[in-house]
Amino acid sequence: MSLFPAAEFEARVARAQALMDVANLDALLLTTEPEVRYVTGYLTRFWESPTRPWFVIVPATGQPIAVIPSIGAPLMGQTWLTDIRTWRSPDYNDDGISLLADALGEAVPKGGRIGVPSGPETHLRLPLDSWAALQAALPDRSFGDDDGTMRRLRLIKSEAEVEKIAAACAIADAAFARVPDIARVGAPLSNVFRAFQGLCLEEGADWVSYLAGGAGPGGYGDIIAPATDTPLATGDVLMLDTGVVRDGYFSDFDRNWSLGPAAPETASAYARLIEASDAAFAAARPGATAADLFHAMDKVLTGGAGGSDAGRYGHGLGMQLTEWPSLIPDDHTVLEPSMVLTLEPGLELGAGRTLVHEENIVITPTGARYLSTPAPRSLPEI
Amino acid sequence: MSLFPAAEFEARVARAQALMDVANLDALLLTTEPEVRYVTGYLTRFWESPTRPWFVIVPATGQPIAVIPSIGAPLMGQTWLTDIRTWRSPDYNDDGISLLADALGEAVPKGGRIGVPSGPETHLRLPLDSWAALQAALPDRSFGDDDGTMRRLRLIKSEAEVEKIAAACAIADAAFARVPDIARVGAPLSNVFRAFQGLCLEEGADWVSYLAGGAGPGGYGDIIAPATDTPLATGDVLMLDTGVVRDGYFSDFDRNWSLGPAAPETASAYARLIEASDAAFAAARPGATAADLFHAMDKVLTGGAGGSDAGRYGHGLGMQLTEWPSLIPDDHTVLEPSMVLTLEPGLELGAGRTLVHEENIVITPTGARYLSTPAPRSLPEI
Repeated sequence: MSLFPAAEFEARVARAQALMDVANLDALLLTTEPEVRYVTGYLTRFWESPTRPWFVIVPATGQPIAVIPSIGAPLMGQTWLTDIRTWRSPDYNDDGISLLADALGEAVPKGGRIGVPSGPETHLRLPLDSWAALQAALPDRSFGDDDGTMRRLRLIKSEAEVEKIAAACAIADAAFARVPDIARVGAPLSNVFRAFQGLCLEEGADWVSYLAGGAGPGGYGDIIAPATDTPLATGDVLMLDTGVVRDGYFSDFDRNWSLGPAAPETASAYARLIEASDAAFAAARPGATAADLFHAMDKVLTGGAGGSDAGRYGHGLGMQLTEWPSLIPDDHTVLEPSMVLTLEPGLELGAGRTLVHEENIVITPTGARYLSTPAPRSLPEI
Repeated sequence: MSLFPAAEFEARVARAQALMDVANLDALLLTTEPEVRYVTGYLTRFWESPTRPWFVIVPATGQPIAVIPSIGAPLMGQTWLTDIRTWRSPDYNDDGISLLADALGEAVPKGGRIGVPSGPETHLRLPLDSWAALQAALPDRSFGDDDGTMRRLRLIKSEAEVEKIAAACAIADAAFARVPDIARVGAPLSNVFRAFQGLCLEEGADWVSYLAGGAGPGGYGDIIAPATDTPLATGDVLMLDTGVVRDGYFSDFDRNWSLGPAAPETASAYARLIEASDAAFAAARPGATAADLFHAMDKVLTGGAGGSDAGRYGHGLGMQLTEWPSLIPDDHTVLEPSMVLTLEPGLELGAGRTLVHEENIVITPTGARYLSTPAPRSLPEI
């Protein structure tokens, strides 16, 4: 049932414990889906329900401890974990907090420090009332940031993780290749969105966690809106941006098409986006920084003016649609082999008219490698 | 673009402000997808990215204030809100916190109280570091629970919301009716999951946020696991439990099928599940409590022993797959017209062998109404 051998998780936890040692942390407390899955392999769509809290403790030595609702026991029992403690949730008097406090009390000595991911891109998946109760139950232990431990771990993918992401990208690739079959002049954009998700499933996606896009004459006004029922028209540029999931790992890239011949201005803007992602791809190698990739793209896109309101030109990718780092001037993360990134340049062509483009890459010892077929160099026509 | 008229949101905010007045709150601070969407109508799948925080303030009087990343400005500009403040996110120095603190400082007098949903089923979608920075930036205001304001608001659906949920249920209904076309002996369960999601999309789902299920001889071992590649076999009971989304509202019910004739024990267990949901349906009316529905089902299922490890026999439904209340002995929420609930009885038939059944209902002035075609009274055979 597990999608990775136990050795994969043993290696992750060993890396975690080495970082925790440096950060002087006696345990990590994890509460969110990707955090819990990263150290256990526990994969379920049941997180869609906000009702129940879930906890995993990574102690300074030894295996993680799961403290979870009993409804999750059969599935957690199929992971590599052996210490699984459960309660019947929801419990309005004590929804796992005393069970968790007991487990933390065993794992962490008095005066010890418990790390909880607290920096950018994190949150605590636990009601604030329960969070206060937990801290009150353990007055002799301190809670604080995990000092970037989980970020650092997840930034560098294992070989097995890169393969999973590549498999998701291949599925999206195959679905994008079939878009000319479903996107015709007159088709409502909402139907194209539905049909495209169907293609992703046919090509092997377990589910389609993300689809955004747009269509409009020579560009689209929004890149995060759900689809309207407006029919596609000749002269529209259609963009679809999808995050398909396979074995719990994401793709995240888009493709553009012109419905009928593209206007010269549109064709040239598209070519500039390709030029920008080419420039970032060429700059992507160990030792370069996230900011370097931003600047490589920004030089092509704005002449170095400093980006757009979208806020960034790409990001990390893996167990989530977006992960650290961000391709922005302030992100000085040094690239290392087995980091997986998206390159996502965009251009504002006028009021309510933008074009965006996105590729997924993995950093290699000598440069970078595309995780799917790169987009055509000229805007393809349907 | 908006899926509801402005009057819908004006009514929601008026109800919020009346409850805030009673709770002596000067503002609500909202950070999660359903909370933000409830008062604004802002619908996007972009929440799948954990990178950027989003904020909405509901002041004691007047319209909500959105404090959001600039990438969201075009879409938020299409809602009924007029006060939309943006920053370019991600910003590692100040990811919206000073902009938010300024807005809260305007909306809330010194000494004022800011309510943040803190009870069961809630969380704060914001890094803990940013949460600490926000509180430090506003030393003259206090932050505390919203006293259940958002829970109370969302428990009672508007007529327009009930229609949206019914539309999602009708889509799942139509997809379930087609399962005999895709679920045949020999088909791997993972392929059935993919094909079923395709059916939901064909029937009009905007996306399929949730699908779980199982298959096994006379019952299944787990009701929250993703699908394995194990082929369906004669004698299996197949269960699919889906949450499809249409216009941002969910269905959440399941259906069971026997592959070939069911064993008498299986057929009788299924009949008992139907009897249990019938009993809860008959008890469902204004004035009854969530606990009453639990007991109505538990009497049929266990003779009143008090439930199972799944933890509950149903829950609320709406903008999320699961919402308050929970059908458990400790939930004394009094049912009122326009509450939408799931009835979800389950039976443990032996080690690793369970059966579950689920229906979606709305409370009416005189009783309850099914939101989809009720399941057949005998286990259907494929």
